[in-house]
Amino acid sequence: MTDTQDIPALMADLGARARAASATLAFATSAQKQAALEAAAEAILAGKDSILAANARDLDYGREKGLGPAMMDRLMLDEARIRAMAEGLRAVAAQEDPVGRILAEWDRPSGLHIQRVATPLGVIGVIYESRPNVTADAGALCLKAGNAVILRGGSESFHSSRAIHACLVAGLKAADLPEDAIQLIPTRDRAAVREMLTMTDTIDVIVPRGGKGLVGLVQREARVPVFAHLEGIVHVYVDRAADAEKARAVVLNAKTRRPGICGAAECLLLHRDIAEGLGRELREALTEAGVALREGEEAWGREFLDMIMAVRVVDDLDQAIAHIRRYGSGHTDAIITEDMAARDHFFERLDSAILMHNASTQFADGGEFGMGAEIGIATGKLHARGPVGAAQLTSFKYLVEGEGTIRD
Amino acid sequence: MTDTQDIPALMADLGARARAASATLAFATSAQKQAALEAAAEAILAGKDSILAANARDLDYGREKGLGPAMMDRLMLDEARIRAMAEGLRAVAAQEDPVGRILAEWDRPSGLHIQRVATPLGVIGVIYESRPNVTADAGALCLKAGNAVILRGGSESFHSSRAIHACLVAGLKAADLPEDAIQLIPTRDRAAVREMLTMTDTIDVIVPRGGKGLVGLVQREARVPVFAHLEGIVHVYVDRAADAEKARAVVLNAKTRRPGICGAAECLLLHRDIAEGLGRELREALTEAGVALREGEEAWGREFLDMIMAVRVVDDLDQAIAHIRRYGSGHTDAIITEDMAARDHFFERLDSAILMHNASTQFADGGEFGMGAEIGIATGKLHARGPVGAAQLTSFKYLVEGEGTIRD
Repeated sequence: MTDTQDIPALMADLGARARAASATLAFATSAQKQAALEAAAEAILAGKDSILAANARDLDYGREKGLGPAMMDRLMLDEARIRAMAEGLRAVAAQEDPVGRILAEWDRPSGLHIQRVATPLGVIGVIYESRPNVTADAGALCLKAGNAVILRGGSESFHSSRAIHACLVAGLKAADLPEDAIQLIPTRDRAAVREMLTMTDTIDVIVPRGGKGLVGLVQREARVPVFAHLEGIVHVYVDRAADAEKARAVVLNAKTRRPGICGAAECLLLHRDIAEGLGRELREALTEAGVALREGEEAWGREFLDMIMAVRVVDDLDQAIAHIRRYGSGHTDAIITEDMAARDHFFERLDSAILMHNASTQFADGGEFGMGAEIGIATGKLHARGPVGAAQLTSFKYLVEGEGTIRD
Repeated sequence: MTDTQDIPALMADLGARARAASATLAFATSAQKQAALEAAAEAILAGKDSILAANARDLDYGREKGLGPAMMDRLMLDEARIRAMAEGLRAVAAQEDPVGRILAEWDRPSGLHIQRVATPLGVIGVIYESRPNVTADAGALCLKAGNAVILRGGSESFHSSRAIHACLVAGLKAADLPEDAIQLIPTRDRAAVREMLTMTDTIDVIVPRGGKGLVGLVQREARVPVFAHLEGIVHVYVDRAADAEKARAVVLNAKTRRPGICGAAECLLLHRDIAEGLGRELREALTEAGVALREGEEAWGREFLDMIMAVRVVDDLDQAIAHIRRYGSGHTDAIITEDMAARDHFFERLDSAILMHNASTQFADGGEFGMGAEIGIATGKLHARGPVGAAQLTSFKYLVEGEGTIRD
């Protein structure tokens, strides 16, 4: 065993193993990857008791540490959650293999035939907080896309993550894939996170999953590229030409279905012309549903993740757009209108990763987009954007076919 | 005018202007961008004399500095090169607009219709060396993709770049686009380059064009993402099942057509079984063409960019692949064979940006790939890879259409 006190050496070793494993994974067959994920699902169901025992240790630790009820709930595993984890692995197993897809192909006057083919990215680093199931979800998605992954779970879920990780490794072994394809950092030492962020030779992309503190740290300090979003400051703009029924349904759902997810609406923008009529109705409906409405500038640009919502009356569509450009986070923003020109203007002038028309922002999710599982949602502009599924965890190469073809 | 002595303030100002211009450019029409590029081509032809006068000052400076003949040639403009620059602008003008393309669209059981639409990346920084025509090429490609660009030319081509830049700005004005869409750093101070590399708030991507010194510096120091390749250590592997005629044509062309470009072959790998017969023939033909052959380990993994080529005899296909994995640079590598299983194995086990079969590596070029002009070739795995044309200078967003659709 590596001495876990020497973090740089430990991480360099993990990185080198991951890189070596990724070279083999790059040409693993679809059947092998599928078999590994199915075997891992089996191992999780069969290993239920030891996972629950490990989780009990984490829960004790969490109680000692004085974690709040929401954190304790995230940390907690029960039979239903373990079954859901296994089902998640099977769902990823059943997805189409994103590697080897021909993304484009064409012929050239020179006689060359060119193909652009999807390849794995290489090595992904995933840094997450207390939810132990991320170990399974993230490990599975990275493997599906032919990538090696280095997982760094939250210190609270240390034992649960180790128990789940052991099941993933059992799956890899069963399918004759390298065990180093999915590694879990075997220490709670936070220095390991900072080390990961600089491992540009062995990690291709880092995906942080968690709160603003974690994501902000990663975005600030990482030398390795990052797929992430810092905040979901999601707006719903109700235009003067909104259909009242659609507005009611969408606004309520966007805010209250699950107020704690990143696609939950945080700010309602009302066109001046409907502020008194439909606007008043919407305020009343929100209040009745238990949402505390906040007026005034100090509520703009805030991610409440709670039953709280900012409300602002704007003069027109352009002021709504200007508000979203200034206070939004480029995650998801929606317009409610029957005026197609207003929709087009909203879609054109804003550059959020996801723009919606007459639809709830709670749909901002890889599963709802039809991508299968997602490893997160990205608001950066390079490579991955919006929900990041297995296909977004691939790169590509060009395969060029000639017949002794030479260039003039 | 900004005080050019205060480099951080100067660069912050340029960055803020570029960001503001990019917001307008994002919804510039195709016709406007085309008109700007055509007007810039006109301005370059009309401004020929002042460009030549500016270039004469640069050539004087280059002579004083004692630049070698190759560098002086790169720096030099004449009427033919000016005409070629104008034609290059017109060719980019005539290309299809990469912005607004629907990259994918699909329906969901929820009733949502989802589109993935190409958008500009934002602001590109281009850092180049002595070729003044890069000012026009890079400026045009960035504009075509709706991006603002900050250009940093080599100090030797300072006056030529300024004169060419003035023509690009004339084009922007003629098409009623913001002048800040194409900015040239108005100082030779090298501190401006280091400043650019850290401007993560205002620059989305940096493209360095030049030698290994420049690209290496940018890759090491940049906090902003980089599209680049450090070296083109290009291999041609002649398999035991190679067709002799194809091998002769491709090997000669790959090395000698233009030995100084990044797609030029640098190392010839010969399967042991053909090392004496076809291998000897290839060596003789290369030597006759003026290529100095180098055997032995010290020649492996080197980018000669000259009439020099490493030669190695390998035991089999897997040793060739292992050699390329170890000594290659992930740019372009080729196999010459009639054995399709060998080709498939080579294509599968290597992950260079471009892999070729029975074709000259000199085709590694955006123009030859049918992408129109290219801003460079990238070997990174994120976002852009291989030749980087206007389409690779775009990002995307999701446009989601509902009918009051809410999530269960």
